[in-house]
Amino acid sequence: MIPSIDPVDLAQRLIACPSITPATGAVFDVLEEALVAIGFSVHRFVAGEAPDGPVENLFAVRGSGGPHLAYAGHLDVVPPGEGWTGDPFTPEIRGDLLYGRGAVDMKGSIAAFVAAAARHADHPGTLSLIITGDEEGYAVYGTVELIRWMTANGHHPDLCIVGEPTSVSRLGDMIKIGRRGSVNMWVEVAGTQGHVAYPHLADNPIPPLVRILSRIEAIELDQGTEWFQPSNIEITDIEVGNPATNVIPAKATARLSIRFNALHTGEALAERIRAICEEESPRATLTARISGEAFLTEPGALSDLVSGAIRDVTGLTPELSTTGGTSDARFLARLCPVVEFGLLNATMHKLDEAAAVQDIVALTDIFGLVIRRALGPT
Amino acid sequence: MIPSIDPVDLAQRLIACPSITPATGAVFDVLEEALVAIGFSVHRFVAGEAPDGPVENLFAVRGSGGPHLAYAGHLDVVPPGEGWTGDPFTPEIRGDLLYGRGAVDMKGSIAAFVAAAARHADHPGTLSLIITGDEEGYAVYGTVELIRWMTANGHHPDLCIVGEPTSVSRLGDMIKIGRRGSVNMWVEVAGTQGHVAYPHLADNPIPPLVRILSRIEAIELDQGTEWFQPSNIEITDIEVGNPATNVIPAKATARLSIRFNALHTGEALAERIRAICEEESPRATLTARISGEAFLTEPGALSDLVSGAIRDVTGLTPELSTTGGTSDARFLARLCPVVEFGLLNATMHKLDEAAAVQDIVALTDIFGLVIRRALGPT
Ligand SMILES: [Zn+2]
Ligand SMILES: [Zn+2]
Repeated sequence: MIPSIDPVDLAQRLIACPSITPATGAVFDVLEEALVAIGFSVHRFVAGEAPDGPVENLFAVRGSGGPHLAYAGHLDVVPPGEGWTGDPFTPEIRGDLLYGRGAVDMKGSIAAFVAAAARHADHPGTLSLIITGDEEGYAVYGTVELIRWMTANGHHPDLCIVGEPTSVSRLGDMIKIGRRGSVNMWVEVAGTQGHVAYPHLADNPIPPLVRILSRIEAIELDQGTEWFQPSNIEITDIEVGNPATNVIPAKATARLSIRFNALHTGEALAERIRAICEEESPRATLTARISGEAFLTEPGALSDLVSGAIRDVTGLTPELSTTGGTSDARFLARLCPVVEFGLLNATMHKLDEAAAVQDIVALTDIFGLVIRRALGPT
Repeated sequence: MIPSIDPVDLAQRLIACPSITPATGAVFDVLEEALVAIGFSVHRFVAGEAPDGPVENLFAVRGSGGPHLAYAGHLDVVPPGEGWTGDPFTPEIRGDLLYGRGAVDMKGSIAAFVAAAARHADHPGTLSLIITGDEEGYAVYGTVELIRWMTANGHHPDLCIVGEPTSVSRLGDMIKIGRRGSVNMWVEVAGTQGHVAYPHLADNPIPPLVRILSRIEAIELDQGTEWFQPSNIEITDIEVGNPATNVIPAKATARLSIRFNALHTGEALAERIRAICEEESPRATLTARISGEAFLTEPGALSDLVSGAIRDVTGLTPELSTTGGTSDARFLARLCPVVEFGLLNATMHKLDEAAAVQDIVALTDIFGLVIRRALGPT
């Protein structure tokens, strides 16, 4: 009744649909067809407008009631760039490797999960896939809109696996239980231009900026946590742009980049820096742009479940890590515990991106164990 | 035997020789002819090479032995610019004013002194004129070379008047007894570029630069003196030039402008800032460019002499000031007491530069009193 799915074959069919971010159309058709064949109900919708959209999204669900295990991922890929050995959108197996843009990030992972779901069709509870066409781009109308739609339609996962490539040297050597957040800030101090010989007629914006930056430099945000390295503030630029040696400038600007752990939020950090600006100068203003909030899923049932499946298939005990850049897990972590696990990330976003065929097969086995153990026996 | 000289006529003849800095040739010929006619020995020489030369200079001397009164000035003028009512190098009297580039800065002043010297030809001691063709330009091979030549040839003035335009609203309302010095400095901190997510692999040059600038901002050089306003440090520029929000930059630079009184020297200030740089970072370097040292001629015999002559001719008691930019008086002050006094400076370096005819006549009277009182009766 439920057909079996070859994960390597499905990965190849997904790679064969060029889906440079934001992805729409054909690549979703391929995935939808596979999911419908193994009993999923599929809802697709387009969200957003230019410049950050439109974006295609897909939610697939099978079964009902608890527990509800979700898999999250993206069908868009970064542009291939020039210099591939073969065609980036013509999947090709050479030796042990499947080449193609998206092989590891993350069509190989999606294919493995779908194949695992085909094997374990008769589970209790709910199994779902949360698949966006825009994770590599602006990510404004992708996973965020999927979560909004799921919430509005009564889909509430209890556990979530994000299938990003987290393995470093061998499949299963690392899973992510959190990510640092990231925020950029711009401090601008207005002044009054004038001649250096008559400083009382001018208002130099540089001294208050230096005071602000001194206080920022003195901040120790934290000393790290059990699972995170210390949060870090870098002043990445200062700009005055005054070519004249005898002129007091009219404006001075500095830019900060803060990478922060789950002890902080981007908004609270912005408020803290803004307060310093306001204390040092009535003419200082702060602009903050939060790239992503930090999240942490404390080690527990979910990480034990995934680690156990990895160990049973590969023999490896994965490191629980919070390193690396931001991912859509930051949004999903607001719903339920989230861990990230997938293929080797060595070639992601690079030329000749490739996944080991046997890793796709093993990943299918791992995902199969996760589904069975999360939802109960088939 | 000694002809009389009409100062307004001589001023017109000097203005009629275009002498945009650096000046050579005709304008010196006119001055030399006038000086030789009234008994001066004239030595002219060209100094320096490109890019800061060559520069023509003139030293004229009459009499021998002490006391030795010198008048110093320049025959070069700044470029006229566009928009004059008449031709800037065709002197023209309209109403009460003599128009032409250099009328106040400072051909009118030189003409007044030469006319005064013609009136008082039979003085004891030595009267000299120290005239350069490059005060408005680089000033590297002008007054500095004249002083070198005078020293080598045994000419040692006891008193010096610099004829720059120092009057503000009425002839005689201000003389300069000193000038502030000026130095620009560049602080550069080298760093090691890197990614903000991996700060341990980079070396951000901005924090040490901020520490250096904080310490510079905390400096109070002095509280001013009886004759000078407080010395002042302005940070006039900071440059990092890093467009990438996730990159730690490789270099950070700041520029300072210090206007300092006679309690300091440019070199000592540079050493003080350099020490701060070296204490804060082994990768910080300082470059200093001294535009001019400060000088002060304490109020005394010379300022009394000039003030008295001004009062007797105009009825005004001049303010003794140290305001304004730098002048060649900074070099001459190493030889002997120096004060600066001349025509109204309202139109110097501007379009339609003009001197009042009656001011040139009165200035001649004042310079005549100064010569007679400095050297003894004719
Ligand atoms: Zn990805
Ligand atoms: Zn001048």
